[in-house]
Amino acid sequence: MYEDLIEKKLKSEDVFDGNLLHVKRDTALLPNGEQATREWIQHPGASAVIPLLPTQEIILVRQYRYPVGRVTLEIPAGKLDAPDEDPLVCAKRELGEETGYTADTLRRLTTIGTTVGFSNEYIHIYAAEGLTPGEQHPDEDEFLNVVKVPLAEAVQMTRDGRIFDAKSIVAILMLWEDLHV
Amino acid sequence: MYEDLIEKKLKSEDVFDGNLLHVKRDTALLPNGEQATREWIQHPGASAVIPLLPTQEIILVRQYRYPVGRVTLEIPAGKLDAPDEDPLVCAKRELGEETGYTADTLRRLTTIGTTVGFSNEYIHIYAAEGLTPGEQHPDEDEFLNVVKVPLAEAVQMTRDGRIFDAKSIVAILMLWEDLHV
Repeated sequence: MYEDLIEKKLKSEDVFDGNLLHVKRDTALLPNGEQATREWIQHPGASAVIPLLPTQEIILVRQYRYPVGRVTLEIPAGKLDAPDEDPLVCAKRELGEETGYTADTLRRLTTIGTTVGFSNEYIHIYAAEGLTPGEQHPDEDEFLNVVKVPLAEAVQMTRDGRIFDAKSIVAILMLWEDLHV
Repeated sequence: MYEDLIEKKLKSEDVFDGNLLHVKRDTALLPNGEQATREWIQHPGASAVIPLLPTQEIILVRQYRYPVGRVTLEIPAGKLDAPDEDPLVCAKRELGEETGYTADTLRRLTTIGTTVGFSNEYIHIYAAEGLTPGEQHPDEDEFLNVVKVPLAEAVQMTRDGRIFDAKSIVAILMLWEDLHV
């Protein structure tokens, strides 16, 4: 199926192995028999959680994101400890670490490929309800503020640029559709 | 504002300069006075277009995405020729190259940061209407099929994994909300 599209790996090499980023440079056989170089980021995957309060507010984290040089508003999220970690376990951990909240129920919304052109990162997205507040305990090099925003306002914020993080937009629009369709 | 969050660049170094990927390794001063290493991808940005037909079908492209090793269904998209290229010009070009269609109107939906934790990629997303078909003319190492999908079905496909590309999900859910709220 789709034989006219599929590329085959001929060779793979590690060109950068950092603390965070692992870059591969592969040689691929194209559908027309030619070869091409494919550079890509190997990523373990991540989980993200949109926590919904009975007030119809969601809980977001405000943090500085170095690559874009801006303070963002995002749903809590973090990388899997290993590619085979259960994404649900990761989702619960990140919710607790970043916001302090624990949830009675986590419901899977979807899984997204963030940048299929240059990485294999998938983010598994959950909605969290039945929330109980507690102490946040972020990583030692992670600084963030916890913010409550009405879901209806968050939907507007995905339009006007106040929320521009892709995973957060997907979560907000899906949860909004769940509640209002 | 947000002085408790902001990190300052102390040093920046190019650690990988490939054809597609440009990786930086910076040293940042954290809000607590400590230092941390920040690895990130420098990206010129991109535009993406969700083309809507009068039949309420959208036009998607099916293509093989090497990093995820899967055939995807995505909205037409491509990188800016340069960081200062007008995203609207890029959007028109990519729509034409990948689908052959030209549009009477392109309307900006939003701009997303795809992976704010490890790249500065922004994708500017437009809705295209008033479409006229023509010949597609993709890049020489780009193989893709053009597919029409009812917008309502595409919304379902963002849930069940048939569409998992983040920019495409954002575009589909925003356009759906525009038409049905």
